[in-house]
Amino acid sequence: MQLLKDRIKKDGMVLSDTILKVDKFINQQVDPLLMKKIGIEFANRFRGKKVDAIMTIEAGGIAPAVFVALELNVPLVVIKKGKSKTANDVYTSTVKSFTKNKVYDIVINKSILDKHSNVLFIDDFLAEGNAFIATQKLLEQANVTIEGIGIIIEKSFQAGRAQIEELGYDIYSLARIREMSPETGIIWED
Amino acid sequence: MQLLKDRIKKDGMVLSDTILKVDKFINQQVDPLLMKKIGIEFANRFRGKKVDAIMTIEAGGIAPAVFVALELNVPLVVIKKGKSKTANDVYTSTVKSFTKNKVYDIVINKSILDKHSNVLFIDDFLAEGNAFIATQKLLEQANVTIEGIGIIIEKSFQAGRAQIEELGYDIYSLARIREMSPETGIIWED
Repeated sequence: MQLLKDRIKKDGMVLSDTILKVDKFINQQVDPLLMKKIGIEFANRFRGKKVDAIMTIEAGGIAPAVFVALELNVPLVVIKKGKSKTANDVYTSTVKSFTKNKVYDIVINKSILDKHSNVLFIDDFLAEGNAFIATQKLLEQANVTIEGIGIIIEKSFQAGRAQIEELGYDIYSLARIREMSPETGIIWED
Repeated sequence: MQLLKDRIKKDGMVLSDTILKVDKFINQQVDPLLMKKIGIEFANRFRGKKVDAIMTIEAGGIAPAVFVALELNVPLVVIKKGKSKTANDVYTSTVKSFTKNKVYDIVINKSILDKHSNVLFIDDFLAEGNAFIATQKLLEQANVTIEGIGIIIEKSFQAGRAQIEELGYDIYSLARIREMSPETGIIWED
């Protein structure tokens, strides 16, 4: 998505070989028109699929995902981050984030997830793929099929892309970074 | 907003005199078309104001707030929940949530907030008003003026509404609950 790559080039900050800050238009400050266009892009890419909900993990994926949901006329389901509950009425799974060096649980009410069978997963970033893998395990518990994965920015040089491809999922990333550094900037995958 | 009240009546669950669950269309599962309509409603109500950003706290306010931002053609700024940082490049403030019986910090990069001077605050719920009061203290540090407050569901019988009115803010709630109980259901404020 050229519009997005141009925006990353203009307003993104490459802090290291692995850290790209997009606080000005995706994370802390969100450009709503860009989110709408991203939502339409994902919707068009996955429109042929039988999908009854869009899934994301709070909070970075909510803004783009709500536009995908609007466009495809299905609900958005927001998986919460939080401490593991032993309650019988939730599904939980654990995210092991190597990049952030922390472990946290994700959780969703059974009464919500049990209503869905075929979903798209939307998120802002793909790096090691840990958030997605935990989501996949969460959805498995409810026998929910992931019909596609939409990622805004993918760091293709990290393990997430290969891991997800190996599992056979249909993944579509709008901006794929092959490598980057503060000196040379970003080299795109294609 | 009658559409919203009807939806709360249909899909909301009054669990006690103080707890209303709207997991099916606002929180865990989000109805994107309802969020769009809510966004347009807030935008129309505050369109006359000079506003250069929409503010919300992650995560419940993001979906409605992004539609307000889109409609008013300004960025959305998402205040993060997290541990207090002593970093010089952030503003922080502390939320004392009596209802949830916990204390947490909210945080935003100075480089983001310093670019704005007049904002609208959008959130899903108003109860005791603690999240708003912490936000107000955060925005004060950057000399940002709150031009209006848009709330989806207000529990008018709790302290938030009175506290905010006393401070002189222009507050607009789409559904105001005067009282509620599992037996009698919801009695609306007006």
